Amino acid sequence: MSGMDLWAWGEDAEQPRILHSMVRVGDLDRAVAFYRDALGMNQLSRIDVESGRFSIAFMGYGEAFHTGAIELTHNWDHPANTEGYTHGSGYGHVAIGVPDVHATCERLRAAGVAITVEPKILIEGGPALAFVKDPDGYSIELIQTSRRPAGAP
Amino acid sequence: MSGMDLWAWGEDAEQPRILHSMVRVGDLDRAVAFYRDALGMNQLSRIDVESGRFSIAFMGYGEAFHTGAIELTHNWDHPANTEGYTHGSGYGHVAIGVPDVHATCERLRAAGVAITVEPKILIEGGPALAFVKDPDGYSIELIQTSRRPAGAP
Repeated sequence: MSGMDLWAWGEDAEQPRILHSMVRVGDLDRAVAFYRDALGMNQLSRIDVESGRFSIAFMGYGEAFHTGAIELTHNWDHPANTEGYTHGSGYGHVAIGVPDVHATCERLRAAGVAITVEPKILIEGGPALAFVKDPDGYSIELIQTSRRPAGAP
Repeated sequence: MSGMDLWAWGEDAEQPRILHSMVRVGDLDRAVAFYRDALGMNQLSRIDVESGRFSIAFMGYGEAFHTGAIELTHNWDHPANTEGYTHGSGYGHVAIGVPDVHATCERLRAAGVAITVEPKILIEGGPALAFVKDPDGYSIELIQTSRRPAGAP
């Protein structure tokens, strides 16, 4: 449990806020590598709990995990580690804002990531968006945040 | 689509960031009421798309939806609206930081919300946490963010 500040809520401890989303993954190193190397997040913390036989890693773009993060949970002995977790019909995705969704998708494609919905503008006047899958099959929505022209360098 | 700024990314449009998590819900008004009245979030925006026969509402604690939000999607004609969405084994929960998890759970219980895990400290020295279910059966983790003594007013 080294390196994790369990009370890292910053100055806003008295205000409620959305902290993170948790998904279970079959291979923690593989999942961390995807969110770090393909999506550019930082590993904010990691805890290995021998007594509970699970590990968790927090991934995000900041330096701390109190302003939006993804919690990756790995249950050491779960059969889904080899069989795969099921996804149901309810949960949708985590959305990530990126400056240039076209460039991001090209970079992800080159890295072997499955692009499940190519960049497109869904609502006139709105940003381009795309969908990719993480190594455990979770959908990630990519939303363009910069107003630069689509595909511009 | 009134009232929604499609480019409300603030000053950080050039930096990637985690934007929101999306879940599908069977009754949008019921879900909005839960996140607003029981959890104290604001409805940040709502879009009704006649052509796609869906509505989405963004819920969060801030005034805009670029720093952490929950997207509630309602597909008008989906059979899951009456049959219920399935949850699979993979997706876990959204975590919400609250100043006093005991007080929050008491308030939610009084409002008829199911407390699935009563407040407890999982890791010595860490915050108390609890789990509740939203009206569509999604797990919400509540994590105490203030260091006030457990249960103190």
